[in-house]
Amino acid sequence: MTVENPASALEVSQALIRCPSVTPEEGGALDLMESLLKPLGFECHRLPFSCEETYGVDNLYARLGTNGPVFGYGGHTDVVPIGDANAWSVDPFGGTVVDGKLIGRGTVDMKGSIGAYVAALTRFLKSPEGKSLNGSLNLIITGDEEGLGLNGTRKVLDWMTDKGEKMDVCLVGEPTSNTALGDMVKIGRRGSMNFALTVRGIQGHTAYPQLANNPLHPAINMLHNLLQEPLDSGTEHFPPSSLQLTSVDVGNPTTNVIPAEITANFNVRFNDLYTSEQVEAWVRERLHRADFDYDLKIRVSGESFLCPPGPFSDLIGNSILDVTGVKTELGTSGGTSDARFIKDYATVAEFGLLNDTAHKVDEHCTVQELEDLSKIYETMLRGYFNA
Amino acid sequence: MTVENPASALEVSQALIRCPSVTPEEGGALDLMESLLKPLGFECHRLPFSCEETYGVDNLYARLGTNGPVFGYGGHTDVVPIGDANAWSVDPFGGTVVDGKLIGRGTVDMKGSIGAYVAALTRFLKSPEGKSLNGSLNLIITGDEEGLGLNGTRKVLDWMTDKGEKMDVCLVGEPTSNTALGDMVKIGRRGSMNFALTVRGIQGHTAYPQLANNPLHPAINMLHNLLQEPLDSGTEHFPPSSLQLTSVDVGNPTTNVIPAEITANFNVRFNDLYTSEQVEAWVRERLHRADFDYDLKIRVSGESFLCPPGPFSDLIGNSILDVTGVKTELGTSGGTSDARFIKDYATVAEFGLLNDTAHKVDEHCTVQELEDLSKIYETMLRGYFNA
Ligand SMILES: [Zn+2]
Ligand SMILES: [Zn+2]
Repeated sequence: MTVENPASALEVSQALIRCPSVTPEEGGALDLMESLLKPLGFECHRLPFSCEETYGVDNLYARLGTNGPVFGYGGHTDVVPIGDANAWSVDPFGGTVVDGKLIGRGTVDMKGSIGAYVAALTRFLKSPEGKSLNGSLNLIITGDEEGLGLNGTRKVLDWMTDKGEKMDVCLVGEPTSNTALGDMVKIGRRGSMNFALTVRGIQGHTAYPQLANNPLHPAINMLHNLLQEPLDSGTEHFPPSSLQLTSVDVGNPTTNVIPAEITANFNVRFNDLYTSEQVEAWVRERLHRADFDYDLKIRVSGESFLCPPGPFSDLIGNSILDVTGVKTELGTSGGTSDARFIKDYATVAEFGLLNDTAHKVDEHCTVQELEDLSKIYETMLRGYFNA
Repeated sequence: MTVENPASALEVSQALIRCPSVTPEEGGALDLMESLLKPLGFECHRLPFSCEETYGVDNLYARLGTNGPVFGYGGHTDVVPIGDANAWSVDPFGGTVVDGKLIGRGTVDMKGSIGAYVAALTRFLKSPEGKSLNGSLNLIITGDEEGLGLNGTRKVLDWMTDKGEKMDVCLVGEPTSNTALGDMVKIGRRGSMNFALTVRGIQGHTAYPQLANNPLHPAINMLHNLLQEPLDSGTEHFPPSSLQLTSVDVGNPTTNVIPAEITANFNVRFNDLYTSEQVEAWVRERLHRADFDYDLKIRVSGESFLCPPGPFSDLIGNSILDVTGVKTELGTSGGTSDARFIKDYATVAEFGLLNDTAHKVDEHCTVQELEDLSKIYETMLRGYFNA
């Protein structure tokens, strides 16, 4: 895979889309990145990681410059599977442009952002300001964001800590825009955790309930307690925390048997008022009220975090306004992203393409959006280093 | 199958147990009954019934005498399956006596009662008082009590209505005794009805609950409303009505999807304070409070009924006291029985062997209990016709 004009966001993005890098496949995407970054002067480190539990993935860390400040970029070249191939109007790995739209798996999540950023870097570093850069640039490009996230960003950050590699700010290229490019920049994310509740009683016959101990009754009481009041009503930058029951299951096919066990699953998305430990305490307090034994399994997908508005989010907002005239909202909605790991190392903000086709059939953006995004990224780089 | 001494409760019961009459099989049991009742002067009518929906079964109606009063007996020769044959200590259809215990499928539910009653009839009708009987005797022996109950007692009662066949009192031989023969006679039964609740919403992602409509939350609210207060606290002859949740199911394997539908099943056992319509109204009132659409399917297994204590229950209680010295309690607990149909035709009461091994492996009673039961039945017959 070669790119004729690396200053073109479209061309770089198309070349990336043509690498079939469904997690955990590298698919040639990181090789392509190296081939684009090395000529710009970046030192590249391939960082394949693995663990006993699951598949390994390949990652890339690239660095240009030796002194501060360090402007970082975080992204992933892995993509979700294409789903039903027949439902696509074009080859999902073809990088095809139809009627001004670039269509392909990973276009908005997030090869388009990487393409736009590489093109912006190319133009910036070849300009007089870029040639006399006073500071450093680095990129974390991983292959495990759409998967389990065990061998990607987290391990690259550990490696960077070992090597003394730092970042001051980090732009993450996830698709954050809602209806117009730049209308939303994310400065935080809610945390997410999953709970599996099991309540056990004593089986029996519905005609003799006094000889049984129906676990469904205290379980309904527990779930009702969880739903009676919201966790909070939101904060300055966050929507209200939300608890959603996702499944309740008994699987008793008979109508005259009181079953011995019930399970319930629920997910909590929590804002900056809570740590996961505090959410757990909130949940347990409400379960305890039913005064009945229960078993609770908990998996924390991510803590909530917020990088409060400041110079970096101002820089992004102003760059968007300069290029497109769009006024940016600073938000924290949506699922988790690798920004939750990076926030411990740098001031992080997420800004990328429109998210409405992410993970869907015919994922796409317009070529105009792609070029605008690249201009905004370039404006940010100029602003950051020339300020 | 022949019985050498039809005046022996043990011999008749053994012969009945040796007929493998698992619903819907007649298994020779009704032929045997005819061979025992005809020599006593009973006119026998075999009443095979069937319907489109399911299997057909054979039934027997037997009548002796032409004038009133009419003393009826209601029973079933069909039995539940044996379950794990290897778990039985003897042949479940062998009618085996081990250490003074008669073991076999149907021993207590309720071939032992039928055997005891036929033996009591034999002794009574051959005695001077029986020979000059002023009144009638009839028996309803059906083959669909352990099955769906569609082609058994109900249809025999319809047939009897057509033919002008009446009963004044009816003894039903279900196993009602708890720890000593005769400690419990049932003069009523709770009603039973099953509900299937479905609540539908709009599927979505747990990160964007505002775009979904989680049906689990109003469903938990509905179920909580049903469980918040008991239906009542019982009546003179009935325990409190009871609502038992038997299953709640969603079947959502993912943790990040808000599902579209939840189902819940519950059973209500209700006493003489309610008709099934009133129970339905009670349930719907509580479901409505959640202010959310729902779908409710209802199946009524039986209405509650009570034959208030009177001369017939006194007769049974006194006969038990005479024979065994046991003081009888008049109860209404347990599941439904065919007595719920008979109560519209006669003063009905249920009295039979100990119920603790009914439907189980090594179902059994003692030979002593069987002979005592037969003596009590005989005492009842003498008391009823000689009073
Ligand atoms: Zn992504
Ligand atoms: Zn029975």
